[in-house]
Amino acid sequence: MYKILNKIHSSADVHALTTDELEILCVELRKAIMDNVSKTGGHLASNLGAVEITAAIHRVYDTSRDRLVFDVGHQCYAHKMISGRLDRFDSLRKFEGISGFPKPRESIDDACISGHASNSISNALGMARARTLKGEDYDVVALIGDGALSGGLAYEGLSDCGDSGEPIVIILNDNEMSIDRNVGGLARMLASQRVKNSYILFKKFYRRYVSRCRILYRGLHKIKEWVKDIFLPDNMFEKMGFYYLGPIDGHDMKTLVRTLRYARELRVPTIVHVVTVKGKGYEPAEIAPEKYHGVGPFDIGRGVEDGEKESFSTVFGSELCSLAENDPHIVGITAAMVGGTGMNGFASKYPKRFYDVGIAEGHAVSMAAGMAKQGMKPVFAVYSSFLQRSYDMLLHDVGIDRLPVVLGVDRSGLVGADGETHQGVYGTGYLCQIPGMAVYAPASYSELRSMLDEAIAFDGPAAVCYPRGEEGEYKEDNSGSDECIIKEGSDITLVCYGIMVNEALAAARLFSEKGVSAAVIKLSRLDKADYPLVYASAAKTGKIIIAEESARRGSMGTRLLAGLLRNRISVDYGCGVDLGNGIVEHGTVKELRRKYGIDAEAIVSIGMEWIENEKSKA
Amino acid sequence: MYKILNKIHSSADVHALTTDELEILCVELRKAIMDNVSKTGGHLASNLGAVEITAAIHRVYDTSRDRLVFDVGHQCYAHKMISGRLDRFDSLRKFEGISGFPKPRESIDDACISGHASNSISNALGMARARTLKGEDYDVVALIGDGALSGGLAYEGLSDCGDSGEPIVIILNDNEMSIDRNVGGLARMLASQRVKNSYILFKKFYRRYVSRCRILYRGLHKIKEWVKDIFLPDNMFEKMGFYYLGPIDGHDMKTLVRTLRYARELRVPTIVHVVTVKGKGYEPAEIAPEKYHGVGPFDIGRGVEDGEKESFSTVFGSELCSLAENDPHIVGITAAMVGGTGMNGFASKYPKRFYDVGIAEGHAVSMAAGMAKQGMKPVFAVYSSFLQRSYDMLLHDVGIDRLPVVLGVDRSGLVGADGETHQGVYGTGYLCQIPGMAVYAPASYSELRSMLDEAIAFDGPAAVCYPRGEEGEYKEDNSGSDECIIKEGSDITLVCYGIMVNEALAAARLFSEKGVSAAVIKLSRLDKADYPLVYASAAKTGKIIIAEESARRGSMGTRLLAGLLRNRISVDYGCGVDLGNGIVEHGTVKELRRKYGIDAEAIVSIGMEWIENEKSKA
Repeated sequence: MYKILNKIHSSADVHALTTDELEILCVELRKAIMDNVSKTGGHLASNLGAVEITAAIHRVYDTSRDRLVFDVGHQCYAHKMISGRLDRFDSLRKFEGISGFPKPRESIDDACISGHASNSISNALGMARARTLKGEDYDVVALIGDGALSGGLAYEGLSDCGDSGEPIVIILNDNEMSIDRNVGGLARMLASQRVKNSYILFKKFYRRYVSRCRILYRGLHKIKEWVKDIFLPDNMFEKMGFYYLGPIDGHDMKTLVRTLRYARELRVPTIVHVVTVKGKGYEPAEIAPEKYHGVGPFDIGRGVEDGEKESFSTVFGSELCSLAENDPHIVGITAAMVGGTGMNGFASKYPKRFYDVGIAEGHAVSMAAGMAKQGMKPVFAVYSSFLQRSYDMLLHDVGIDRLPVVLGVDRSGLVGADGETHQGVYGTGYLCQIPGMAVYAPASYSELRSMLDEAIAFDGPAAVCYPRGEEGEYKEDNSGSDECIIKEGSDITLVCYGIMVNEALAAARLFSEKGVSAAVIKLSRLDKADYPLVYASAAKTGKIIIAEESARRGSMGTRLLAGLLRNRISVDYGCGVDLGNGIVEHGTVKELRRKYGIDAEAIVSIGMEWIENEKSKA
Repeated sequence: MYKILNKIHSSADVHALTTDELEILCVELRKAIMDNVSKTGGHLASNLGAVEITAAIHRVYDTSRDRLVFDVGHQCYAHKMISGRLDRFDSLRKFEGISGFPKPRESIDDACISGHASNSISNALGMARARTLKGEDYDVVALIGDGALSGGLAYEGLSDCGDSGEPIVIILNDNEMSIDRNVGGLARMLASQRVKNSYILFKKFYRRYVSRCRILYRGLHKIKEWVKDIFLPDNMFEKMGFYYLGPIDGHDMKTLVRTLRYARELRVPTIVHVVTVKGKGYEPAEIAPEKYHGVGPFDIGRGVEDGEKESFSTVFGSELCSLAENDPHIVGITAAMVGGTGMNGFASKYPKRFYDVGIAEGHAVSMAAGMAKQGMKPVFAVYSSFLQRSYDMLLHDVGIDRLPVVLGVDRSGLVGADGETHQGVYGTGYLCQIPGMAVYAPASYSELRSMLDEAIAFDGPAAVCYPRGEEGEYKEDNSGSDECIIKEGSDITLVCYGIMVNEALAAARLFSEKGVSAAVIKLSRLDKADYPLVYASAAKTGKIIIAEESARRGSMGTRLLAGLLRNRISVDYGCGVDLGNGIVEHGTVKELRRKYGIDAEAIVSIGMEWIENEKSKA
C-alpha cells in the first residue's frame, strides 16, 4: 500500500534509504496518518506537523538504542509507524490496540511514559546522566513543543540541563501554538528569536563554513563567542548554557538531517529550534489546527464536521457564561485548554475576565488564589489528570486560607481512548485532601448546572468534578442534598456518585430481576465526614457496595467503610468496586468498566455472591 | 529599648520618619532580629539580608492596604516588627505565638499564606488582576529571592505576569544563593546580568536625568529602547515583557526608596533587581550564611556552635554514603536542601553522583525517573511538604512505569516550629496513592538504615518516610516484616508507625496502670493492601485505635478500618487519632500532639471511654 513505508520497521531501515526515498517516506507517513486517523480518530494536526522531524530523527539516530523522549507524546504516530507498528494502526487508541502515546511496554523504541506536558527535558537529562555515569554509548534526544515549553517543569529541566554539560539534544518543535494559541512571555521571547534574520544568516554561514571542520570549529569558537557578544542578540537558551541551533524549517528534510547530525556531534547540551506548521499537508488542519488537534473519525474530503455535541464540558461552559452575566466577580481561567474545557464561549463573551495561562496548571491555581483573596470568584477549568500538577498549590495557596477558588474538574473518572496518563482517577483522593474544599460530583447536566452555581456561592474552595462526554439515563437534579436515595431497597445498598449512577441504576435493575431489592444512594458531595443516609441504609440491608471510577487509595469506598466502623454501624458485607491502583489503559469507557469490574454486571456478581453465601449459612 | 523601632507600628509610621531616622530604623531592626532570634531561634541570615528592602517597602507602600506578597516568607521578620508585632517577638515560632511566616489570620499586613517557594509572582498577579477588575486602587508587590526563582512555578508566573500589562512590582532579592548555593542556568543568567557594568551606569544615568520628568520620559522612551537595542544586552525579563530596573545595592536605602518609587509610578509589570548580602551586619552569618539560615538559640558573641546532633536526617545521609560505597549506581539528588536533608557528606564524598537541582522538586522527580529508567538508583532526599510539588511527576513519570526511584521523605509528620505550611501530614495519603510504591515508615535510626537499604534494593518506586529530629525511646529494628507486634495485649489494639510508636508505647503503659492490656502493633510498610496481624489483634480485642501524625484523608486509620470491614472482621470500637484536615500551626511537636489529641493521654482517654461504655452496658 505504501511503497517505502511498508518496508520500514526500524530506524535502521530509515538509515538505508536514499535521500529521494526519504522524501517519499515523509509523503507516505503523512498519507498513512491521514488514512488511519480519519478512520480511528486521534491526534491529527500535531502528527502531521512532526512528520519530517520524526523521519529526520530516525535517519540520524537509532531509537532502539538511542533514547527519544517525547513531550506530551501525542505527536508520536510517525515514530510508531516507523518503529514497527504500522500494521497495527487500525487499532490506534482502541481497547487492547496500540496506545496514542509512547509506551515502553509497547516497544523498546518508546523511551518512557509520555502524556503530561513539560517533563521531557527532565526525563531526558536523567537518561543522559545515567548514560554518562555508566559509561555507556548512546544518544539522548528530547522532542518538545513550544506549548509544553510554557510549563514550569520544562524551565526547571532547561535550567539544570543547560548547566549539566551533558551531551543531549533538545529539539524544540515550535509551531507557534500549543493546543490552543500560545500565550505569555515565553511565546514573546520565541517570537523575537524567530524574526532575527541576521542571526539566522550568521548561523547558516557559520554552520556551512566552520562546522564541517572540527579543528577550525574549535579555534574559531572563542572568536565566534566574541563576535556574537558584539552584534548578535543574547539568546535565553545560550545564557542557560545551551548550544543553540536554529531556527530552521521543520519541513526541510535536508536541513533537518544536517542540523541534527551536527547537533549530535557537538557533545554538549544543544537546542535545535525547528519551526513547523501544525496540520502540515492537510489544508483544513493547517487553517484550523485547534479543530484538528484531537478528532473523531472524519471524511478527508469534507473535513471535520462543525458543531459540537452537547457534553458535560459544553454545559459547564454555557452555565458559567450565564452565571457570569449576573456576577461581575466571576473570571474564567484555563491552562491551554479553551476548547477542551468548553470555555470558548466564555472566552469570546468575557475576554477581559478570561485568562489562558498556557500549560501552567500550578500557576493557574496560585494566580486564582490571589484573585480569590482579593474578592474575585476565579473558576479554573482543567482536566482532572492535569490538575495533579497543582496538588501543592491547592494544599498550600488555596487550602490553608480556605480561599474561594472554584475548580471545574473536567475528565473526572475514566476518559477512554487517551489511556493511562489521562484517566482522572486520583481526583476523589487528592481533592478531598484539600482542607475545607467542597467537592461536588454532578451526575447529570442539570446537576452540573446547579452544583456549579453552588460551588461559586460557596465560601471556600470548591471543586466540581464531572466526567468526559455525555450524560446517561440519569438526567435528574438531586443536587440539593449531600446524599440522596434515588432508589429505595431493602436487601443491599449501592452507593455511587457522578456518571457511575447509571451503572448503579442498571445494577439495581439486574438485582431486581433476580428478586433482590437494591437501594441506590447517590452522593452529591464527596468531602463530607459522614453520610447518614448511607449508614442508615447499610445498617438496614447489612450489605454495601460503593462503585466509583476512582483508584482505591483515597476512594469514597474506603472512607465510607471506615465511616461505618467509626460510627459503630455493623454490616455483614461491604466493599468498594474501584480501579485498584489507578493504572487503566485505553479503550472505551464501557470496555474499561467491564475489564476492571466496576460495571453493573460486576456489582451484581459481588452482591449475588454475598447473598448466596448468606443463604448457604442460614 | 529601640529608639525609633519602638514607635513604629505600621507603614504609616515609617512614612513619617526623616531620612536619618529611617537609617536608624534599619540599624535597630537588625539589632532586634539578632536580639530575638538568638533567644528564640528562627531564620536569621535571610532576615538580616532583607532589612533595608523591607524598610524601603514600608517607606514607599502601605502594607495595610497595598499587598506585599512574600515568597517562602521566612524573611518576613522586619516586616512583622514594623507592622505592629515587635512586642510579641519573644513568642516567635512558639506555640500560640507569632508565626515565622506571613499569615493573614495574624495581621492584615500579611497578604497571603507563604511558606513554600516560587508562588509569589502568581499570587501577586492574581491580586493585581483582581484589583484592576474591581477598579480598586492599591499596589501589589512581590518579594522573591533568586533561590525561589529557580522553581518552575516562578517562571510560569513571570511568563503570565510579563504578558499581562498589570501594574505590579516584583522585587528580586538576589543574594546569589537560595538555602544552599544556587545552581543551574538561571543563576548563570542572573550572574551575567549582575556584571554588566555599562548597563548599570546607563540605567543610573537614565533614571537620574530622565525618570524625574514624566514628559521627558515618555518622549525619550522610544529613543531609549532603540539605544538599548543597539548597545545593551537583551535581558530575559525585558523579553518577557517586564520593565527591568537594576541591579541595585539592596543595602543602600536611598537608592532602594528612589527605585521603588519610580517602579510604582511606571504602572506596568516591573522587576526591581536588588543585590543583597545574606546575613548582612552579622559577620559570622555573612561568612557562612547556610549555617545561619535556620538556627536554634545561640550566643551572639560566640555564634552558632559547630557540630550537628544526630538526627534522622544525619542517619539517612551517613547510611546513604555507606550504601553508595558498594553500589556505584546510587546517586543522590536534592532540591536546594543539601544541609537540611543530611546530604552534606554524600555531596562531598560523591560529587559526581550528586545533583542539587535548585528549588525544583518536580524536575528532581522527573529527572530521577529518567535515571532510574536507564539503570541507575536515584535517591531524592526532600521534605514531605515540599514533595507535594512532585505529586503528578510521581504518579505519571514514576508510577505508571514503576521506576525504581527512591525518595528520602524527611520531615514526615509534625515538624514543629515552622508550622502549617511545613507540616508533613499529607505524605501518607499521597505517597500511598502512587502505583506500586513501597512506603516505609522507620521508627528508629536502625530501622531507617535497614529500610533505606531495602528501598534501594526494591524493584520499583520506594519512599522512606522519617520524621524531623531525633529518635525516641524506641530504638529497635523491626523492619523485617510489614507489621509487627511490639507489645502483646488482650483488651485493646493500638496501631502506629514511625515516630508515633513512642506515644503508643507510652499509651500502653498508661493503659497498664489502669489495668487494661493494650497490644501495640507497629507498621513498617504503609502501602500494603491488608495487615493480617492488625486484623487478628482487632478481632481478638474488639477495639482498635490507629494513631498517626497524618491528616485523616488518606490516613492509615481510614484504610485499616475499611480493611477490617472488607475482610469481614467485626470489632466493637474503632477509630483513628489523626490531624483532621491537616492544618496544624506551629509549636513543639509535644504541644501539637496534645492540642490535636494524638498523644498517649488522648489515646488512653478514647480507649477508657470505650471500656467504661462497655462496662456500663454489661
